[in-house]
Amino acid sequence: MFSLNRSLAKSALRIHALPVRLFGSSATFFAKELQIEKTASPKPHPEYESLVFGRTFSDHMLEVDWTAAGGWGAPRIVPYHNLSISPASSSLHYALQCFEGLKAYVDDQNQIRLFRPEKNMERMISSCARLSLPTFDGKELLESLKKLLVLEKSWIPKARGYSLYIRPTCISTDTTLGVGSPQAAKLFIILSPVGPYYKEGFNPVRLFADDKNVRACVGGTGGYKIGGNYGGTIMPQKQAASKGFAQVLWLYGDRQYVSEVGTMNFFVLWKNEKGERELVTAPLDDGTILPGVVRDSILALARKEHADEMKVSERLFTIADLTKAIDEGRVEECFGAGTAAIVSPVKGIHFAGKDYIVPIDEKLNAGKFTSLLANKIMDIQYGRKPSPWSVVVQE
Amino acid sequence: MFSLNRSLAKSALRIHALPVRLFGSSATFFAKELQIEKTASPKPHPEYESLVFGRTFSDHMLEVDWTAAGGWGAPRIVPYHNLSISPASSSLHYALQCFEGLKAYVDDQNQIRLFRPEKNMERMISSCARLSLPTFDGKELLESLKKLLVLEKSWIPKARGYSLYIRPTCISTDTTLGVGSPQAAKLFIILSPVGPYYKEGFNPVRLFADDKNVRACVGGTGGYKIGGNYGGTIMPQKQAASKGFAQVLWLYGDRQYVSEVGTMNFFVLWKNEKGERELVTAPLDDGTILPGVVRDSILALARKEHADEMKVSERLFTIADLTKAIDEGRVEECFGAGTAAIVSPVKGIHFAGKDYIVPIDEKLNAGKFTSLLANKIMDIQYGRKPSPWSVVVQE
Repeated sequence: MFSLNRSLAKSALRIHALPVRLFGSSATFFAKELQIEKTASPKPHPEYESLVFGRTFSDHMLEVDWTAAGGWGAPRIVPYHNLSISPASSSLHYALQCFEGLKAYVDDQNQIRLFRPEKNMERMISSCARLSLPTFDGKELLESLKKLLVLEKSWIPKARGYSLYIRPTCISTDTTLGVGSPQAAKLFIILSPVGPYYKEGFNPVRLFADDKNVRACVGGTGGYKIGGNYGGTIMPQKQAASKGFAQVLWLYGDRQYVSEVGTMNFFVLWKNEKGERELVTAPLDDGTILPGVVRDSILALARKEHADEMKVSERLFTIADLTKAIDEGRVEECFGAGTAAIVSPVKGIHFAGKDYIVPIDEKLNAGKFTSLLANKIMDIQYGRKPSPWSVVVQE
Repeated sequence: MFSLNRSLAKSALRIHALPVRLFGSSATFFAKELQIEKTASPKPHPEYESLVFGRTFSDHMLEVDWTAAGGWGAPRIVPYHNLSISPASSSLHYALQCFEGLKAYVDDQNQIRLFRPEKNMERMISSCARLSLPTFDGKELLESLKKLLVLEKSWIPKARGYSLYIRPTCISTDTTLGVGSPQAAKLFIILSPVGPYYKEGFNPVRLFADDKNVRACVGGTGGYKIGGNYGGTIMPQKQAASKGFAQVLWLYGDRQYVSEVGTMNFFVLWKNEKGERELVTAPLDDGTILPGVVRDSILALARKEHADEMKVSERLFTIADLTKAIDEGRVEECFGAGTAAIVSPVKGIHFAGKDYIVPIDEKLNAGKFTSLLANKIMDIQYGRKPSPWSVVVQE
């Protein structure tokens, strides 16, 4: 399966006309060369109920260094530690940095599981290439990650909704202020135990459709998981929060196409203008949308298991299309989809001074289909339902 | 003069509806609290002829730390050193980082001079506010910088075209993976002696007008000097370089407006469609263009000293307008303007598979007006021509 995904990653790179640096003498590091230095002072594990997303980190991290001259070194598992970074590093000046987010779960048989991790490896390679950071063989990073997870297994909370959030990151460590391809880089993985995004179960949110600030436009970098896509979203997000909205729903282009939520992709289940029942989300082909793993999984599940109930579309639609459909009572459900929140019901959208109410099933605290999808995906992630998407980490 | 610029900065912030955090108990640090720790091992100074931009750094740097709880600490001049940064720092994940670029010069009287440094302080505060990083009183940073420059005076090369490049930088040092306002930050300044951008004098360049990749769009962050505006430009820049072009000329919008070069703003001197001789550059009001200090200075100089020879416009124009004007022989000169290269003549533009030749005066190796402007600005920067723009640093 993985070699297929590798070739998909390569073809994705080709589409974007980026150089493929997956093979060659120093084209990757190797998991078999992994060196392990264990911590002498393990930290106490936190009370998992009190976890705040992304604030607690496990005892160890993975690091691999690269230079243009010497290629990749050996991966190392080392105690979690601060990095020594030059103040001239282009990771701190020109946002030469990209990352991934995935999770490790413990199933009822006490096995460690990952959810479609090869998708994250593919996307990370694509992000690195876009920034002119070194690429590598995703299989080697995944194998190295698995060894880290086995060592850190005690840090994976064992309850539905809980998991160990995995943050692979690649930064330039080049020390020149010239704006150019980095000649040195560091790839690292840190691990953070996390609880359910909303402790009370589903927490339907209201989104603020921003008609002023734009996350990404055609020709930009919105389709890559790179730092520069995030920094600029915080101020608009704060402004939306100050008005009582959980997140920004990003629009783009003169026609104000609906794109995504920044931390989640966005889906609508509606009766479209043609009268068809349709699950719709923004398409990837104009490069403005992050190709989310949960997004892809929802599309695949809907196409495989719900094709008789709905049409499944990746296509452009505008905020005017959406608000008109809400006004006409044609919208059944809206939800966000991402690794952190998995599936997040949406109960309202604010646009141009007006609130639009999206239906929610009072008992489920979510739309029926939203709730169904969330459970289907969690069942796979926690190994309750057999699926090739769930990968057991061999210990 | 400076208080005026501060109030200008504030009004600029208001226009963008950003919170102003310039005053209050922890609203700034103070230059009078500066602590100095001198290096015990000064580095040898380089041969200035061999300098490569941004690779050599002086003995000391300035640092100031901030936390949401405690506000700003005291500024410190310390030996140049690597930073200890958490691998979870949002400066490395979400590009919570912004910077400035200005230069210090030594004049014929052996005085240190800065060129309109208050403009850089204003812009840095605007960039920090846009990223939800802490702001400060620009006068305090400038006073702290002056003390650093006095200490590092020996690092300022003493020859026309040479200078000490100053890189103020602000990064989040927050250690959470949640995408949100940083609760901790570090402001620092590093110094790099630099030579003339082109050793042989003017080196007219050919630009590749990119009709696929976009640097910034309306509603984005192109008007701020933040890391995220730079990382994504490197790959398109490499692609342009591989075709033999020095830089990318960025376009944006459905009509393909001419914007800037990324490291420089872009100017055209032409006979426009109405038959007027006009110096034109893209306007700032749609937020896609970096408000360059050299850009502003050129506009001011042209309006003050050349108003009888040309109309001076900040307005939108398209790549079609420009290529048509070149084809019709109406373009006199094109040039870029920025702190690094000062004024950089352009001898050609490539767009949609076609090369357009821009006239160059063979003797000057630049357009006449380009050459005149470059000399006027350098005369002010090096203190040869009295101007309120050139600020002497008192030792």
